[in-house]
Amino acid sequence: MRLRNLKNKDVLLEECSYLIHEPWEYKGKWHEVFQNCQPIHLEIGMGKGDFIYEMALKNPDINFIGIEKYSGVLARAIKKYPQYLPNLRIVCLDALKLEQVFAREITTIYLNFSDPWPKRRNQDRRLTSEVFLHVYDSLFQEKKQIIMKTDNLGLFASSIVSLSKHGYILEEISFDLEHSLIPNVLTEYEKKFRSMGIKINYLKAVL
Amino acid sequence: MRLRNLKNKDVLLEECSYLIHEPWEYKGKWHEVFQNCQPIHLEIGMGKGDFIYEMALKNPDINFIGIEKYSGVLARAIKKYPQYLPNLRIVCLDALKLEQVFAREITTIYLNFSDPWPKRRNQDRRLTSEVFLHVYDSLFQEKKQIIMKTDNLGLFASSIVSLSKHGYILEEISFDLEHSLIPNVLTEYEKKFRSMGIKINYLKAVL
Repeated sequence: MRLRNLKNKDVLLEECSYLIHEPWEYKGKWHEVFQNCQPIHLEIGMGKGDFIYEMALKNPDINFIGIEKYSGVLARAIKKYPQYLPNLRIVCLDALKLEQVFAREITTIYLNFSDPWPKRRNQDRRLTSEVFLHVYDSLFQEKKQIIMKTDNLGLFASSIVSLSKHGYILEEISFDLEHSLIPNVLTEYEKKFRSMGIKINYLKAVL
Repeated sequence: MRLRNLKNKDVLLEECSYLIHEPWEYKGKWHEVFQNCQPIHLEIGMGKGDFIYEMALKNPDINFIGIEKYSGVLARAIKKYPQYLPNLRIVCLDALKLEQVFAREITTIYLNFSDPWPKRRNQDRRLTSEVFLHVYDSLFQEKKQIIMKTDNLGLFASSIVSLSKHGYILEEISFDLEHSLIPNVLTEYEKKFRSMGIKINYLKAVL
């Protein structure tokens, strides 16, 4: 996603009431951040925040953490959603560093329109590769659930195989999420894709 | 598939050198029919036989059994492929009666362009429903492998979920078999679908 630089990016990030600046300090202790024992759901690659903000609004009994690699993208999310929600935190973090920040405390991971990394030589970079599934194992509590949406059929196929080989059971699959009965909160990408008539693929995998 | 009735249907069936007329007599003993111990692969719903005949020609070290519910369709297969192959047998049989005919002797099941039974109330009739997966358990030797092709995304989605819940690992998935690297033998339907530009979905599941 190419974005013009926000002039006041650093101020937005600095002053945000729900951005966690030193997340590694809370590894294994995120319940202290939220000051309750509600389940914690994690979105990896939250983009401009449409999905996680609406999810947090709609589900006050669940805590949400959104991570995003690019600070410029995160600043746009903060600009769009300035209001503090008690059950939402965001972190500027590369997925490769997840293990430094979380330990056995997540119940659900959302992967929305992740980079498909179509070339075979880059397959380990896909967020559903064996490499990442192994990382997620150390983030999850006993119950493990991954919910994924993508327009990319190559990524979708490799994700089904990778999740299945790792032991996940594929509980739900749709190749046309909009016309399925599955409850759904839209991401920015999804709104754009829908308007273009592109079908969205969805899966829920549990372990 | 609507077909004109073949005038000499009964004669074709009666005189076919590789049609087994009383298949229940060989339950658990199909290796005796082939007079060797090669693995036995089963196609459920062989239609006019393009797939299984070519598979048998290309793989002399595997025994193939094709079953087809409709005798009229089977007669067309026999008319198209009159030549006897030592590693191919066909049976006129409804999939619901598989357990009367096979026992712990199959290593691979092919489901090619099975009826999608799109309505929810008919979901048990799909050849990858829990009902049928349970039946297949009793046909398979230790090694279980199901290979499926379909143009129907609804059937494909429900099959992935059903196979996964039954314990199968999804080893391979393609949403565009023609342009994948997966080796492939075409069925009659597939030839038609290809010419219409319809993409074919493929999966290999093992247990």
